[in-house]
Amino acid sequence: MDFSPLFWPVELKGETISALDETKLPQRLIYFKIKNYQEACRAIKSMKTRAIGQVLLVFYTFLLYVRRIKEEKKLLPTLSLIAKSLNATRPTLPFKFLTDMVLDWGKEPSTVEKNIKGFLEFLKAKRIEQAQAAGALFEDRDVILTHCNVSGLLPLIGAFCRKQKKHISFFVTETRPYFQGSRLTAWELQRAEFNVTIIPDSAVAHVFAEGLVNKVITGADQLARNGDIANKIGTYQIALLAGKFKIPFYVLAPPPSNAGTGKDIAIEIRPDKELLTIAGQRIAPKEVKGYYPAFDITPAALITRHIYLRIS
Amino acid sequence: MDFSPLFWPVELKGETISALDETKLPQRLIYFKIKNYQEACRAIKSMKTRAIGQVLLVFYTFLLYVRRIKEEKKLLPTLSLIAKSLNATRPTLPFKFLTDMVLDWGKEPSTVEKNIKGFLEFLKAKRIEQAQAAGALFEDRDVILTHCNVSGLLPLIGAFCRKQKKHISFFVTETRPYFQGSRLTAWELQRAEFNVTIIPDSAVAHVFAEGLVNKVITGADQLARNGDIANKIGTYQIALLAGKFKIPFYVLAPPPSNAGTGKDIAIEIRPDKELLTIAGQRIAPKEVKGYYPAFDITPAALITRHIYLRIS
Repeated sequence: MDFSPLFWPVELKGETISALDETKLPQRLIYFKIKNYQEACRAIKSMKTRAIGQVLLVFYTFLLYVRRIKEEKKLLPTLSLIAKSLNATRPTLPFKFLTDMVLDWGKEPSTVEKNIKGFLEFLKAKRIEQAQAAGALFEDRDVILTHCNVSGLLPLIGAFCRKQKKHISFFVTETRPYFQGSRLTAWELQRAEFNVTIIPDSAVAHVFAEGLVNKVITGADQLARNGDIANKIGTYQIALLAGKFKIPFYVLAPPPSNAGTGKDIAIEIRPDKELLTIAGQRIAPKEVKGYYPAFDITPAALITRHIYLRIS
Repeated sequence: MDFSPLFWPVELKGETISALDETKLPQRLIYFKIKNYQEACRAIKSMKTRAIGQVLLVFYTFLLYVRRIKEEKKLLPTLSLIAKSLNATRPTLPFKFLTDMVLDWGKEPSTVEKNIKGFLEFLKAKRIEQAQAAGALFEDRDVILTHCNVSGLLPLIGAFCRKQKKHISFFVTETRPYFQGSRLTAWELQRAEFNVTIIPDSAVAHVFAEGLVNKVITGADQLARNGDIANKIGTYQIALLAGKFKIPFYVLAPPPSNAGTGKDIAIEIRPDKELLTIAGQRIAPKEVKGYYPAFDITPAALITRHIYLRIS
């Protein structure tokens, strides 16, 4: 199975973490180095790595210090400090679930490295299973709309469909303001030789009305216990429109967070310059403000099927 | 009354047409010169001027030749040739209605200049009336979402509201890929000292769900006889979502075209590089294609109220 570089975009090599710089895609496939937890936090805040990349970065950052801290009694306090910093980076992402897991393992310093590495192997296997389960939902000639980027899962889903002789193709929203659709999803699907067409975020209803798409699938940055999800801004309106056009709306969901419902999930408001500036150049008049909620909440009722990552 | 430069962005001065270069806004307020109908067609195709600017450019281009052609018997054939070229520029825009009008006047060479100038004065007065009628629909503290740009009508609507001591404010979608919202609408509203906030095209449902907006108003590039409209891509999904949230959806509509319903309106598909490239730099991978319908159709049933431009 040939994986998208976005499927496992972060690795630990000796004393250095190597992470795919997603801001440079699709022009350049380059990795940058992270040497300590402060650099890891900066990489997360600046969105050089995102989604599964951020999850992997959390684990590898801990692993870095597990290897570095020689005095056993200093390990747990160090891991706690790292956890605190990581959890402060982005409000909508439920890192705490991950950091709590590592802190728990940290109580047994002799086995913590083995536990982290074992968990990452398990996570990889479970992500592959999740892609396989999603692939089973698609049929020959399906045209699937997606939004944002699901970290290498779509090419993998496509590969499973191919194995079963099901030809599927994709539409992807460009996903403003960060262009994950145009830069990442289109790139990884094209690279895996799937037919993919980029549309403006504003063209979803039109494409539905024209009958160009018959299924939708997105990822989710957070899953509440009742099935509501937080995902990239725009997911909610796509789900509403899919409902209107009776198009199935599937979600590749992470394990549930502590949020009971979507209402319990804090929505991160990103700086408006990310919306009002492109490549350092201002688009909007200087004095005008923007409002850029990075995520929105899609209620469970609009989701035809959750495809879960089953790690517990 | 202080008009937005976008309200009447084209003028004829002697032998030269002067048009506001909308692609340079908001950084620079500059006008470019148009000396013949070929340049006028290029300006329309390249979208240096758009919407009402294109309508004015049609009339002023005719007027230019009315002044230039001294031999009466050459006038009508020249006007016919110009009409043909202008009508070929953009499929969704109903210029034919305008060019037919001028060709009809052209049968009386001695009065054609007076007719064109008289019509333009009449058009200006009717646009002001249209803004006044729209202003009457808004109430104190309304927060109004708009999409794309309505050529100077929104600041004028706002000015009428101010006169009646109604404080209104605006949200505007950035309106990809041409950024009419960020570049033009935000600029002209800010310039007229209205509170305006730019959002991604993907944040409409979220902003509705948060209760940040209580009315929607857009323009229309074409009005079919049954009330369906063609307008900037994205209008349709905003109308669907407004319906879902029971938010009134108003349309500033031009005179009806010959289209019976929205189905009779051809949707212009613009080159995908306008979607996949920004400031000459490619966003998407080189080989990936885009689909950029520049307009969509909003059925009359989703429109709470049309505010008509009553020129006949």
